Amino acid sequence: MSRFSARTGFSRTWNPLAQALAERRARGLPLLDLTETNPTRVGLPTPEPALLASPEALGYAPEPQGLLSAREAVAAHLARRGARVSPEHLVLSASTSESYSWLFKLLCEPGDNVLIPAPSYPLFEYLTRLEGVEARPYRLPRGHGFCLDVEEVAAARDERTRAVLVVNPGNPTGHYLHEGELEALGRLCAQEGLALISDEVFSDFAWDEEAGRVPTVAGRELPMLTFSLSGLSKVAGLPGLKLGWTHVGGPDTLREEALARLELVADTYLPVNTPVQLALPGLLAHAPRFQEALLARVKENRRRLLQARSREALWDVLPAHGGWSTVLRIPLALGEEPTCLALLDEGVAVQPGYFYDFPSAAFLVLSLLPPPDVFAAALAPLARVLDRSG
Amino acid sequence: MSRFSARTGFSRTWNPLAQALAERRARGLPLLDLTETNPTRVGLPTPEPALLASPEALGYAPEPQGLLSAREAVAAHLARRGARVSPEHLVLSASTSESYSWLFKLLCEPGDNVLIPAPSYPLFEYLTRLEGVEARPYRLPRGHGFCLDVEEVAAARDERTRAVLVVNPGNPTGHYLHEGELEALGRLCAQEGLALISDEVFSDFAWDEEAGRVPTVAGRELPMLTFSLSGLSKVAGLPGLKLGWTHVGGPDTLREEALARLELVADTYLPVNTPVQLALPGLLAHAPRFQEALLARVKENRRRLLQARSREALWDVLPAHGGWSTVLRIPLALGEEPTCLALLDEGVAVQPGYFYDFPSAAFLVLSLLPPPDVFAAALAPLARVLDRSG
Ligand SMILES: Cc1ncc(COP(=O)(O)O)c(C=O)c1O
Ligand SMILES: Cc1ncc(COP(=O)(O)O)c(C=O)c1O
Repeated sequence: MSRFSARTGFSRTWNPLAQALAERRARGLPLLDLTETNPTRVGLPTPEPALLASPEALGYAPEPQGLLSAREAVAAHLARRGARVSPEHLVLSASTSESYSWLFKLLCEPGDNVLIPAPSYPLFEYLTRLEGVEARPYRLPRGHGFCLDVEEVAAARDERTRAVLVVNPGNPTGHYLHEGELEALGRLCAQEGLALISDEVFSDFAWDEEAGRVPTVAGRELPMLTFSLSGLSKVAGLPGLKLGWTHVGGPDTLREEALARLELVADTYLPVNTPVQLALPGLLAHAPRFQEALLARVKENRRRLLQARSREALWDVLPAHGGWSTVLRIPLALGEEPTCLALLDEGVAVQPGYFYDFPSAAFLVLSLLPPPDVFAAALAPLARVLDRSG
Repeated sequence: MSRFSARTGFSRTWNPLAQALAERRARGLPLLDLTETNPTRVGLPTPEPALLASPEALGYAPEPQGLLSAREAVAAHLARRGARVSPEHLVLSASTSESYSWLFKLLCEPGDNVLIPAPSYPLFEYLTRLEGVEARPYRLPRGHGFCLDVEEVAAARDERTRAVLVVNPGNPTGHYLHEGELEALGRLCAQEGLALISDEVFSDFAWDEEAGRVPTVAGRELPMLTFSLSGLSKVAGLPGLKLGWTHVGGPDTLREEALARLELVADTYLPVNTPVQLALPGLLAHAPRFQEALLARVKENRRRLLQARSREALWDVLPAHGGWSTVLRIPLALGEEPTCLALLDEGVAVQPGYFYDFPSAAFLVLSLLPPPDVFAAALAPLARVLDRSG
């Protein structure tokens, strides 16, 4: 009789790539790390630590949804992005990862499922399974540049589906949700009684302007229950402070019931530390400086990447509109893992597409966060390895 | 078709007592609050907020089990209590509440159950249900002064039981686990493949010496998987900082598998904020000052309570050995809720026993944390109301 649950029975074997990377690190060999997405490790501006040491920082006022002053700061932050929301409709948590775990608890019985975009960030498999919930992938069709296709969402749905998850903009695909897609999603969700969970952690990081883009579903009049998620982790580049937020929207009765239940869930854990709640206005005031520096970095690295590609290259940089990463399409014959291993031999770390559930073995994912000199130094070996197929 | 889960379908109606208390607060009437257990609100010593503002406080080093320096500080703290443990066997979380949620995920399929002491802190019903797990109560027999009786544990067990939970010392009953009880529990757990979850958040708060007391199961050689839980919330009186710890013990193979799985769970949420992890050595260095002041407070308040009771009184202060609360047995005829309401009319707030699942309607729970003048001022009205039955 095993003593442990199926829901924690994840595979723990390392793939050859993770192994090779760990070995290279252990041997202390130099590495141009284009998998680095930790915003605190790439030389971007940070606020003053003193913000955390307010006189009341060691106090404790158990407010399930989070301190009102902190929720007001989030509402003001959203208002600057054009979303008018009430602090009453915001729930703080220790991260968007925790927000997800609460939403899966709220919406799903064990055995129910939620629809998850593919390709997408690999976290969802863990977050769902730990709640006894199934993650059912829906395809972002490559033909549409990995934009959302509501037909694919509808096709993935079954009678145990409780919610549709969109990542807006996609990670790592970098596409925003558009008005027409949201409208179609609204019809599907309202008709089938599904909630919409919109992950907007990268929403502030648009590289360009686009007509019809939906930066957030918060503050919109929509016919279904909506949850819009974000947090300090990406918005201010401060994942170590552990503060995320969820805006709950949709028809009044549903929204109020969702909020009342989330309040009880939040009350059970009361997970957000006091120092970060008190510091939140200051931290969000700092966010624009961080975001500007990050956007300049990301655009510059991407520009150099496009420059490094010769006209005849058999690889491509996929079009995208925002986020912290970029996706390369490479010749199928090269293979993702062999390419990653060959690059590692040259001292360059990148991620294979399969890590994000890309549809075929022909993609690489590069973080655009590394300092420009690191990123630039990686481009020659990158082009060399990718052009081998040519 | 309801859109929300059964596991979040908790009753949200307020009992008359909670309502009366809220009304009294809303009207701004004076209140001698003997339900206050928030350690940051009763004038006990706190450390310097500057501890939170170390230069690296805004950084982020994602270590699933928690920063090694922080785990070493916990190991040193446990060593000062006679428990020799390896930092490798410690997992940090954002609170013991979160540790519980991880352990229920680790040990239980949806529909499995864990055995929970009654009377006990009411949190467990929420923590289990949110994980799709059932809380099956086992009685702490009143005849034994609410000490553990392994027969009761065995009787509560069924084929879906995965773990036994002990609160050591009990909240609010204040009894420690004893060597003989642990030995019997070990036999039961090893035989039936159950894990032992030992909640030791109040373990540092003993009021006296006792032979055969088990202050912690951490660092013991035991035949079953053990999880020993505590955190800053009680140990240093800092619930707002959100840091708890779990020591994993037991037979090597089981312990290593449990740790590997917990590491993946922790990696999914990475919930402990960096500032508190970095401050932990300083915060634990401060803990003895807090604990000393708290113990002096608790003992003094309890001494006055015993003094306030006349020899002929029909109510009793139950014997106990530690913790932050005390339990009164009152005449059954008075009733818990009428007594609490009558006390509230006199400006004194206390908790009814049913809140903690006491076996009959004849108990009150008083926090021993309030400042001595508040506590003392409540004693005359308390004796007056309780002696009405005489
Ligand atoms: C799309 C997306 N959502 C959520 C998260 C998790 O963010 P948090 O740190 O708030 O849990 C990430 C982290 O990279 C992410 O890429
Ligand atoms: C016995 C017991 N365990 C656990 C907790 C929760 O502690 P934490 O703040 O670490 O979640 C409490 C809180 O009062 C408690 O009384």
